[in-house]
Amino acid sequence: MKVLMVYAHPEPQSLNGSLKNLAVETLRQEVHEVQVSDLYAMHWKAVADEADFTALQHPERLNYSGESRHALHSGTQAPDIAAEQAKLLWADAVIFQFPLWWFSVPAILKGWFERVYAYGFGYGVGQHGGGRWGDRYGEGTLKGRRALLSITMGGREPQYGPRGVNGPIDELLFPIQHGTLYYPGMEVLPPFLVYESRGIDAAAYDQLAQAYRERLRRLFTDETLPYRMQNGGDYDERQVLKDTVAPGAEGFSAHLRGGNSPATQQIPAITPYAVTLEPA
Amino acid sequence: MKVLMVYAHPEPQSLNGSLKNLAVETLRQEVHEVQVSDLYAMHWKAVADEADFTALQHPERLNYSGESRHALHSGTQAPDIAAEQAKLLWADAVIFQFPLWWFSVPAILKGWFERVYAYGFGYGVGQHGGGRWGDRYGEGTLKGRRALLSITMGGREPQYGPRGVNGPIDELLFPIQHGTLYYPGMEVLPPFLVYESRGIDAAAYDQLAQAYRERLRRLFTDETLPYRMQNGGDYDERQVLKDTVAPGAEGFSAHLRGGNSPATQQIPAITPYAVTLEPA
Repeated sequence: MKVLMVYAHPEPQSLNGSLKNLAVETLRQEVHEVQVSDLYAMHWKAVADEADFTALQHPERLNYSGESRHALHSGTQAPDIAAEQAKLLWADAVIFQFPLWWFSVPAILKGWFERVYAYGFGYGVGQHGGGRWGDRYGEGTLKGRRALLSITMGGREPQYGPRGVNGPIDELLFPIQHGTLYYPGMEVLPPFLVYESRGIDAAAYDQLAQAYRERLRRLFTDETLPYRMQNGGDYDERQVLKDTVAPGAEGFSAHLRGGNSPATQQIPAITPYAVTLEPA
Repeated sequence: MKVLMVYAHPEPQSLNGSLKNLAVETLRQEVHEVQVSDLYAMHWKAVADEADFTALQHPERLNYSGESRHALHSGTQAPDIAAEQAKLLWADAVIFQFPLWWFSVPAILKGWFERVYAYGFGYGVGQHGGGRWGDRYGEGTLKGRRALLSITMGGREPQYGPRGVNGPIDELLFPIQHGTLYYPGMEVLPPFLVYESRGIDAAAYDQLAQAYRERLRRLFTDETLPYRMQNGGDYDERQVLKDTVAPGAEGFSAHLRGGNSPATQQIPAITPYAVTLEPA
C-alpha cells in the first residue's frame, strides 16, 4: 500500500522528527511505499493568496475559492499545490505528524490544507442543490483513503480528559478529524497521542516507539471512527440530524454512530500512549 | 479606550474587508483609538521557525519554546513579534476579523498566535509547580482585555447548530475562544457570526452592518462568556474539574459556569446575524 506522511516540525532532531523517521522506517519494513511531505524542509508556503494561481480569472478582486475552482480545472494551480494533490490521490493512507500548538495544527500545516484542498478537490465536490450539499463527510475526492493524526502535546493527559481544563482531546480534534479529514472522504483512525512530550527520556521513547510501531502495523486494519455519512440517511435536507437519529443528542458526539452517550465514550479503540514521567 | 483589530483576509474588497473598515470607522466615532494589524497587507510571516529569534541560544537544535522564552527576556525576538506584543499590551480590546477556513482561523492568523504568543507572554506565565500550573485560563499577560471574534462563514446556520453536520459553532470555536483567547487572560465576548457570506447583497449588508455596529457599541459593556478560572477554585491540582463542580458534566460546556446543560444553552446573549438568502 501507499502512505503519504505530512510532517510539520521545524527541528529534525525533535520528538516529532524521530516519530516521522520511525514511521517511514516501519512502514517500509511492512513493504509499503512511503512519500514524505516535510513542510518545513520544503519551505511550504503557508498563506493562501493570489500567488496560488498562475493565471487569475478576475485579477481586479480576488475570490480565492472561485480562482481555486478555475485553476484546478484549467491546470493553472501553483505547482506545489498540484504536487500535493497528486500525492493525496496516490496514497492509500495519510499520516499527519505534528505538535499540537494552540489546540490545533501548526500554521504551516493549516496552510497546507487551505491551499491543497482546492475548490473541486477538497470541497465543492458533487451535486449541490435539490436537498443535496455535495459529496462530503464520508464521500468526496479522498474517499477510500485512511488518515491518522500523530500528535505530540506538552500538557498532561488529565488536562485533556472529559473534565480537564483544556477540554477533551477528542473534541479538540473534531474540527480536524471530522471537519478536515472526513470532509473530503477520508476514514479517520483514532489518533496516536503523546502527552508530556518534554519529559520523554530514552526509556520512555523506547516504549513510545513500540506502541507507535504497533499502531502503524495496524494502519490498514484498525477500525476507523464511526462518523455518520452526510448522504447516508441520518441528516435531513438542511444537513441537520433527523429527529429519529440519536434523539436529543447534541454536539460533536452526535455525529458518531452509536447513540447519544458523551463523545469520549463513543470513540472506540483509542489507544493513545500517555507518558506519565515528571517533567525534566 | 484602545482597540486592536487583527484582520486576516487577502482581498480588501471582500466582506471581511468591509467589516474591518466598518469596525474601524464605528470605533473611532465612539472615540476609541484603533490600531489595525492587516496580516495579509503586512505580509505577516505565518510560520514559526528559527528566524523568529535574532540570536539563538542553541543553534545546534531548535527548541522553539526555549528560544522563545530566552528571546522575550533578552530582547532578541524578531521585531514583528515584539511589535504585535506591544499592540496587545496597548489594547483594551482585540477584535479578530477573518473567514472560517476549515473550521478554524486562516493559517496566517494561526501563525500570528504561534509567533506573538511567546513563552512568558502567551504561555509559561506565573508559577508552575506545587499544584499550580501557571497563570492561564482567566489570568495571564492579557488579563483585563476583551476579545471578540468576527467571523464570516460560507455555510448555513442550521449546519452549525446543535445537531448540524458541521458541529455546533460554539464548540468549533472553543479551541480559539477558550484555548487561545481566554488562555492568556482575555475575557471573550460572544462571537459576531455571519453565515452564508457568499449570498450577501447590498440590502443584506446594510442589515448586517447595523447589527455589527450595535455589537461594537457594546464592546465594553456586553457580558463576556462565563468561562471558569483555572485558579479560581473549580479545578483540582491536576487541572480537572472537582467532583463537586458541575457534577457529571463533561466536554467543553463544563468549563462554562452555570451547570451541566449543553454548551449551546449555556452561552448567554449570543446574537449572531444570520443571513438567510439563497446563494446567488
